[in-house]
This record gives sequence, structure tokens and C-alpha cells, in this order.
Amino acid sequence: MTGPLDWIRDAAAAREDAGLVRRLSVTKSADVVDLAGNDYLGLRHHPAVVAGAVAAAETYGTGAGASRLVTGTLDIHDELEAALVALTGAPSALVLSSGYTANLAALTTLADAGTLVVSDEHAHASLIDGCRLSRAAVSVARHNDLEHVAELLSRRDTPRAVVVAESIYSVLGDAAPVEDLVALTEEAGALLVLDEAHALGVVGPGGAGLVARAGLYDAEHVVVTCTLSKSLAAQGGLVLAHPDVREHLVNTARPFIYDTGLAPASAGAALAAIGVLRDHPELAARLHANATRLAETLGVDAPEGAVMSVEMAGPHETVEAVEQARAQGVRIGAFRPPSTPDGSSRLRLTAHADHTAHDLDRACAVLAGLLPARV
Amino acid sequence: MTGPLDWIRDAAAAREDAGLVRRLSVTKSADVVDLAGNDYLGLRHHPAVVAGAVAAAETYGTGAGASRLVTGTLDIHDELEAALVALTGAPSALVLSSGYTANLAALTTLADAGTLVVSDEHAHASLIDGCRLSRAAVSVARHNDLEHVAELLSRRDTPRAVVVAESIYSVLGDAAPVEDLVALTEEAGALLVLDEAHALGVVGPGGAGLVARAGLYDAEHVVVTCTLSKSLAAQGGLVLAHPDVREHLVNTARPFIYDTGLAPASAGAALAAIGVLRDHPELAARLHANATRLAETLGVDAPEGAVMSVEMAGPHETVEAVEQARAQGVRIGAFRPPSTPDGSSRLRLTAHADHTAHDLDRACAVLAGLLPARV
Repeated sequence: MTGPLDWIRDAAAAREDAGLVRRLSVTKSADVVDLAGNDYLGLRHHPAVVAGAVAAAETYGTGAGASRLVTGTLDIHDELEAALVALTGAPSALVLSSGYTANLAALTTLADAGTLVVSDEHAHASLIDGCRLSRAAVSVARHNDLEHVAELLSRRDTPRAVVVAESIYSVLGDAAPVEDLVALTEEAGALLVLDEAHALGVVGPGGAGLVARAGLYDAEHVVVTCTLSKSLAAQGGLVLAHPDVREHLVNTARPFIYDTGLAPASAGAALAAIGVLRDHPELAARLHANATRLAETLGVDAPEGAVMSVEMAGPHETVEAVEQARAQGVRIGAFRPPSTPDGSSRLRLTAHADHTAHDLDRACAVLAGLLPARV
Repeated sequence: MTGPLDWIRDAAAAREDAGLVRRLSVTKSADVVDLAGNDYLGLRHHPAVVAGAVAAAETYGTGAGASRLVTGTLDIHDELEAALVALTGAPSALVLSSGYTANLAALTTLADAGTLVVSDEHAHASLIDGCRLSRAAVSVARHNDLEHVAELLSRRDTPRAVVVAESIYSVLGDAAPVEDLVALTEEAGALLVLDEAHALGVVGPGGAGLVARAGLYDAEHVVVTCTLSKSLAAQGGLVLAHPDVREHLVNTARPFIYDTGLAPASAGAALAAIGVLRDHPELAARLHANATRLAETLGVDAPEGAVMSVEMAGPHETVEAVEQARAQGVRIGAFRPPSTPDGSSRLRLTAHADHTAHDLDRACAVLAGLLPARV
């Protein structure tokens, strides 16, 4: 007699044997140097950002109460979208409940069974899931290989094509050749969906990202997706694109239409974070200085943004290193299959603007002790 | 020469011609009777719920800062999951960033290419998208037709099967035969994924939902999904299931693993709303009394929960009725294809616990004037 959960228990046992079990554990911030999270500018506890969240909850209530299309669009959503346009120079912005649903919304409405999607092999899970859900034919391009992208596009027999990439990649932290991708896709008559989750707030003029830095928001085939949950210290996702693309999403994107609008407190926090970002350009500079110091200790190149990656010998060594660091008050991330694009096991470290020289001294001393387990 | 957005503009023109354009407009709550939103217990502005959101933002910051699996699990997430278990009697709870991602997480991890999914034809878009993303073979069962579900299950040639339903349906507001579905799936060796988004807080003992009312949380093949954005007045989603299912989701659910944890303010609001629900059982009773009065005016059966539906002659009549009501200070929902399960155009109305007798008098007078445009 087999039970309905037997296969789930078998899978759990196999994970245990392979050293690939993931467990949730509560993070307490006291006396820990966080080199794992994505609050790159350290704004989650910034008084102005907290005040923005509090004021929004008090004014608009604790939830949007409905889909944005029913009664769930509030003044704070309009204000946030206007502020995102002002920050980036994008032609329009649409805010969703998470970066994950923003990527699903963009891909499922811009690609369909008559579309070839050419997706970078390091694209984030939410981009991959968006491609799958779109029913498009997907060709995977070698990482940051423009010639491969062009070749795959040239072979297409579909009426439409979409190229998918990240401006700064989530696990390895390297940047895409954004200007070349924009030119190549324009040439090929393809759309470009570019995820700036790890770039917004961190790179470009005033933290506006890599498309803004290249001055390319007037290219109407460029669709940028992003999150409010990293540098902007909140929760939520967004799509920055031509107003006709925004209108298309509002009318056809199921992960937008059939989801409750973003909670007012998250919208208020992100709005306030944009204000802090605008008034304090030194935050991004401090982040980059901290990243450079960490990269030197790790023996890797200084990253374009905040994310650094160190390849380890295997999953057990990775978990062991993370636990050793944790015991010494430093949090770093473990990325093991299937979370790594190339099947490797890696430490993922993030620089933050709010780490002090003392924090970094401590972190670097701990990290130096982990390096023998590197590949 | 065709531009990259030409097809999007063509689709927009076709929507305009068909009377199916959706537009975002800001909702201002002053002097409006809201019969459209899903804040069924009227807790979005409740002082204790706002205080819960504010305290969480002040204590934990404005965002979780990372995936729940990295450093994004905070004490408030643990507390909320424990409170959800206490409220429902479910064996375990996992909180995600939206109801949409909760359904994607459940379906993509419980079904795969070796699974037959039998899904009710009225299932919510997020359940349908979860099925699509799972790569399972999907058979659509006639609405609430147990014999059809059993017949589709009996024909399966896959090792596993999952039945998908809602305990109270989102558009029509009718209830599923929950006890029969639990028995039928147990008999057939299938899992049951049941969305209680419109039941939690509204029906069952203390608002615990229909699975709790039937005393069926000890059936390990039952997986309940839900949202925190309706009766619980916040944002977020959840899965209530056997701890082995929870562990399976934590380890394999991409919409959980690759998404930032729920914002502390939303977790704090939902936690406080559960407390209000526990202390004020009269809220659900008031909701049902208000629903009964509205249903009488509309000439429909009193609903099991809060949602009522009125079929209209067509999409134009539906929009016209909504705009007439709106001009008179009453918000109701328009559901047109493709948002309705049966291709009809409908008004969707929701009862709320916080509507006063005066609100209802006003609303019923306005609604009576709309009825000539019914089917």
C-alpha cells in the first residue's frame, strides 16, 4: 500500500543523502555582518524608509484589498510609479506584487507560441518560469555570448522574437553587454526583456540602472523588469517600458490582473527609499568601496554591482563554509544545484552600503579562513 | 517596415472595438460603499491591524531583504505561520509573497509530467497557471461535478494525480463539495489542492475555512492554499499542509525559493488580523447578514461566503452598470471575458463586515436601479 506522500518522502531522503537539504532558519540581525541579503543600500531600517511604510499603512490601510484593476489601485501606487519613472527615465512604470510575478507578467504577455525566446543560460528562475508559462519556443544562449544570441535569432522561423537577459546577474554578479544587446535586438526586430533587479539603486546615474546609464530608455523594444525588494528595501516588482507595453500588461498579464495590488506599506517604503537614494548618492559609492575591499579578500574581481561569487569544491564544502562563517557572526549565501546556473556550488556574497570599517575588518578576517575550501 | 510594438498596438485596437479595455483608476475610499474589494472583514484600517503592520516595520525593517532560504526568514514569519496553524488546525503552514505564487508553488511541486491534474473549470487563473507551469497533463472537470472528476481520474495512465478546486469560488462565489472531494481523492490515491482564498476568515469555526469545518486537516493528501490579502487585510499567500509537503515546498518550489520573503509589515498585519478574528467572531456573522441583505436585493441566493455574482447581457452592459453605480458612490466589480470561467459578463459583488445599515440602504437603492440590464 503506497501513501499519497511516499514519493515526497523518497525525494526528501535523496536530498538528505546528497547534502542538498535546504532549511529555513530565523535570521536575527543583532551582531551579525550580513553578506548574504540583498538590502544593498542598507535601507530596510532607515528611519525615512520605515516612516514611509508606516505613513502608507496608516493612510491607505494594511493591504490593497483587491486587484489593481478592481479597487486595488491607490494614490500611493501612482506616486510610486511616477517616482520610478523619475528615477530611471523610463517612459512608464507598472508596479506588481513581486519581482517574480513581474517577470512572469512580462514574459507571458510579450511571448507566445509564435515567439522564439533566446534566453541567457544564467537567467533567473523567474525569467525561466515566465518563458515556460508563455509557451514560446526557448533557445538557451551561452552566457553573455552575443554571437550565439545573434545566431539563434537568425535561425528563427517564428513571426516574433524576445531576448531575455539580466543587466547584472543574480548569482555570479557579472554584467551583461547591455548596449550591444539593445543594438542586436533592434537590428533583429526582437524585443529585449532585461532584468535590472541587481542593478537598480546600485549602478548608473543616481542608481538608475544600466539601461539608463546607456541612455537607452527611448528604444521602444526594450522592456526592463525589476524588484522593489533589494536596493529599495521593500517588496514588489516592476516593469519599465513604453506606455503601450504597460497598457498591454494591464490588459493581458494574468500575474498582474489576478493578484492583489502591492501592500501600501511596501509601496510607501519603496517610495521613501527612492527619496533617500536621490538625496544620498554617497550610498552607492560606499557600497562599491565595500565591494572592492571584499573582492580583494576573496581574490575575485571587483563586481559591477554588489554581488560576488566564489566557486567551492562541492555542496558539502559550501554548506560547511557558510556554517563556519555563521558561527563567527558573518552571514554569506550558499548556492548549490539547482540554484546555480552551471551546476557548481558557490558562495554568494553581497556588499552593503551600511557596513562599517569594523564590520568589514571582521568579515574579511572570517572570509580569509574559508578560502582553503575553494575550487 | 513593421515596428516591434505593432502587434501590441493592433491588439489594443481590437480590445477597444470589443469593449474589453481595462484601465487602472485610483480608488479613494471617502464616501464610497465598496462592494468590489476583498477586504471582507473590513480590517485594512482596523487600528490593531495597522498597529501590527507598523510594529513589524519598526522591528524588522521594511523588507525581508532576501529569500526566506537565505536571510529572509524573520521571527515574524515564524509567528505568523504558528498563528495560521492555530487558526485553522492545519498541520503546518508556509507563508509566501502572494496567493498567486502560493498556487504556483503548490502546483509546480506536487504535479509534474508524470501527473494527471483534474482541475475544476472555474479554477482561478493562478491555479491554471500553476498547472501549466507544472507540465502535467491537465483535464478540465465540469464545475463542481464529482462524477466527472471521478471519471477523469479513473482514466488516468500516470503514476500520480492531483485534483484542483476552490472551496469558495472567486467569481461565482459558490462552494465546492469539500468533504466529497476529500473522500473521492483519497479513494483514488490523488492529492487535493484546494484554494481557500475566499473562505478563510469568512466561513468555518472562527473563520478557519471549509476544510477545518469538515475536520479534514488530518488527511495528509489535502493541500490548502490561501491568501493573506482578503480577510486578513494584508498581502501574501500560504500553503497549509502536512509538514512533509511543507519541507518539499521549501526545497523545491521555485516561486518560494527565488522570491524575496514576505515584507514584515504584511506579515505583522496578517498576524494582528488573526487576533482580531479570534476576539471578534461577530465580524463573520455581520458579514453574512450583510451578504443576505445584498443577495435579496440582487435576487440571487445568499452566498456561502462573501461573493455574489449577477450575470449581465454583455460586456458593454456590465461596464455601464459599474459606471452608473460608481457615479452614485457604490463600487462593484465588472468581470468580462477572459476573467469569467464561462465566457459570460458579470457583476461581482462582495459583502463586507464593516458596512453599516446606512451603507447598505444606499447600496441596495443603487443596485435596484441596475437590475434591468441583467440577463
